[in-house]
Amino acid sequence: MSGAHRVVILGGGFGGLYAGKALKRAPVVLTIVDRRNFHLFQPLLYQVATGSLSPGEIASPLRAVFRRQRNTRVLLGEAIDLDVERRKVIFNFGEVDYDSLIVATGSADSYFGHEDWAEIAPGLKSIEEATEIRHKILYAFEAAEEEHDPEIRRQWLTFVIVGGGATGVEVAGALGEIAHDTLRRDFRSIRPQEAVIELVEGSPRVLMSYPPDLSAKAEASLRRLGVTVRTSTLVTDVAPDSVSIKTPTGMERIGARTVIWAAGVKASPFGRVLEHRAGAQLDRTGHVTVNPDCSLPGHPEIFIIGDLANIDGYKLPGVAQVAMQEGGYVAKLIQKRLRGETLPPFHYFDKGNLAVIGRASAVADIFGFHISGLLAWLTWLFVHLMYLVEFSNRVLVFVHWGFLYLTFNRGARLITGDGPAVKVSAEDDAAEKGAVEAAHRG
Amino acid sequence: MSGAHRVVILGGGFGGLYAGKALKRAPVVLTIVDRRNFHLFQPLLYQVATGSLSPGEIASPLRAVFRRQRNTRVLLGEAIDLDVERRKVIFNFGEVDYDSLIVATGSADSYFGHEDWAEIAPGLKSIEEATEIRHKILYAFEAAEEEHDPEIRRQWLTFVIVGGGATGVEVAGALGEIAHDTLRRDFRSIRPQEAVIELVEGSPRVLMSYPPDLSAKAEASLRRLGVTVRTSTLVTDVAPDSVSIKTPTGMERIGARTVIWAAGVKASPFGRVLEHRAGAQLDRTGHVTVNPDCSLPGHPEIFIIGDLANIDGYKLPGVAQVAMQEGGYVAKLIQKRLRGETLPPFHYFDKGNLAVIGRASAVADIFGFHISGLLAWLTWLFVHLMYLVEFSNRVLVFVHWGFLYLTFNRGARLITGDGPAVKVSAEDDAAEKGAVEAAHRG
Repeated sequence: MSGAHRVVILGGGFGGLYAGKALKRAPVVLTIVDRRNFHLFQPLLYQVATGSLSPGEIASPLRAVFRRQRNTRVLLGEAIDLDVERRKVIFNFGEVDYDSLIVATGSADSYFGHEDWAEIAPGLKSIEEATEIRHKILYAFEAAEEEHDPEIRRQWLTFVIVGGGATGVEVAGALGEIAHDTLRRDFRSIRPQEAVIELVEGSPRVLMSYPPDLSAKAEASLRRLGVTVRTSTLVTDVAPDSVSIKTPTGMERIGARTVIWAAGVKASPFGRVLEHRAGAQLDRTGHVTVNPDCSLPGHPEIFIIGDLANIDGYKLPGVAQVAMQEGGYVAKLIQKRLRGETLPPFHYFDKGNLAVIGRASAVADIFGFHISGLLAWLTWLFVHLMYLVEFSNRVLVFVHWGFLYLTFNRGARLITGDGPAVKVSAEDDAAEKGAVEAAHRG
Repeated sequence: MSGAHRVVILGGGFGGLYAGKALKRAPVVLTIVDRRNFHLFQPLLYQVATGSLSPGEIASPLRAVFRRQRNTRVLLGEAIDLDVERRKVIFNFGEVDYDSLIVATGSADSYFGHEDWAEIAPGLKSIEEATEIRHKILYAFEAAEEEHDPEIRRQWLTFVIVGGGATGVEVAGALGEIAHDTLRRDFRSIRPQEAVIELVEGSPRVLMSYPPDLSAKAEASLRRLGVTVRTSTLVTDVAPDSVSIKTPTGMERIGARTVIWAAGVKASPFGRVLEHRAGAQLDRTGHVTVNPDCSLPGHPEIFIIGDLANIDGYKLPGVAQVAMQEGGYVAKLIQKRLRGETLPPFHYFDKGNLAVIGRASAVADIFGFHISGLLAWLTWLFVHLMYLVEFSNRVLVFVHWGFLYLTFNRGARLITGDGPAVKVSAEDDAAEKGAVEAAHRG
């Protein structure tokens, strides 16, 4: 088998995972390399950020996923360069030869040129960012409880979510629930339900990729959860204690100490390597233009799939469905080619969109049917659990959710890592007394 | 109620938690302060370190625990000083007045004067250390898989656990299982079951606080799991790639890149504050000598409980049971005093000891009965689940364990945070080819 066709997949996200799985019975030698030792079920990352799920529940070790796939090895490492002549990927641990290369390195948060905002407003792309956001949210309530200055206390209790796509809507909904249900009885000096949650979106409506009636339903659900929805509003500055916005009627400054970034993504930096080494064309946000069969122009042996790809000038939505279908398509094409055959161009089959807003509400656009409320939420639950089929964690997540649903609880709300020091403006004993009195009133 | 007796508890571990719970119906105003927002079920921390449980499953938010206890408030902060005249604790966020103070700040890892070893050999006291150890263990197998130099590969596959008490034994047993069961089929170039696991203990036997027959049973169980048990052996140096030891027959150097510290604890630094501000007597390892009723000599209003306390010159074992019983005792004493009554001195009721070795084996010394094997393991499981009664997580942990037991799986084996860069000694392609061939053989 030393002459077997060597396939290298960069990235173990939805694209890489599905391409790798689809090569299970192919006569190839497959190497999958990721910077992390796990596949992350990114659509549920916001649940980690809001304390419903633990990181381990939405991540599956890549080695476990490919354990029984005997033609496959998994390596931990980062691709740093490419030699298209000698067909080698250069990793931080050494080189790996390929006959076919599948690049599925995904995307990263984009701050539209304001990369300094990243420090204040973490995005939601990795486990680390999710636990950082969880820390920030929970810590804000703790700091408010101990704060004596009413202005600073209000800033701690104000949360701004930038971006009204599915992630932003889901985070805002979960935050509304945290303030109104989860933490309702946990504090003595503050009332968590007085928290202000601002969802800021540049477009005229949230969930722009959904039909307008579902956007309206989502906004209504968010408002019921206490979220202020600001559409046609742009963020002009992010500071540690405020967010400056430009609304249709003018400029405004929101005093807030917790900002979550769900506004935009850019292509992964490996696109630049493809540009320099393989002459790839990149668009404005760094996506690599590929042929209708996902191959790189001039390099039929290199495929780009998922968030990084821009098929024939058309950017498909950056969702798991697209990456999974492209991964399956490319795996099939490689096998066809080995038999001297070919395949028609890739065609994306859009099964629909789903976004959840709180614990028992969602909006869904499935095969053109618009549904909302509990039915949409149940659909969302079912679809996500079915897609977790690759995961050993499926049963656990299901049980956990059932348990959360019954108890209204969020068990994973830990503040770990080093927190910012709590700064108190005045050693005023009055607030403390107030707290204790409140404890007795309650 | 402004004249109510004010109780302040420092620390939300087992001592602080049980003292706080026992004051539920007392006519006091209670403030519990911890550096973290959660109570940690420390006896299961090694399960986080070895990838069986997620942090959220062994931690319970303190606010949730005390939600319905109306005379109690929870604050997040660190005690930095004490004013015994004005009866105030000075925190990083301000001051809190007390009439009775319960200090339950616990202990920290002790490296016996070699604090520089901490960098290489993390202990097992916090969630962060547990996830760091999990990272190190899993990363070692990944690095071995990519390593071409056989000597370095062997170092990556050698794990040294320093300390043969309950924690060391439990970590070593879990590591044996990881190497022999969990990861058995996950790699292509290495065989995880060839991992060398060395348990180093200075005493003549492991589990010195147990009867000798149970120590012997534990050693036999560990050997069956592939663990090398070295007793009467002292660690003389810890380096990034080796551990130097002094055995009864001479000096030796073990090539190893993963070292876990389970050898010793010292009292928390708040003991020093008590020494300077309240004239407390500290023993060699920093424990505070207290009266038979857990109060500080000369300060009947200050109580020291749990790991920090040294009752009348006698140091009780640093286990949850002791802290819980002392917490309950002090809470009762405070209530008695408010009625002008008193209590006989604290008496520790030792219910026995339990240590688990792998997935279905344990040793237990319960009311003088020595049991081992599956029966001891089931006892251990039952006892720990019962003690998790305060936690909303109980059902979940139970389900998770049942699931793990059925599937031999460790779902939480994620490598998060920034890992060390993989260093490869030579760009030798032979090992890579070997790996791929192994993949086809397997």
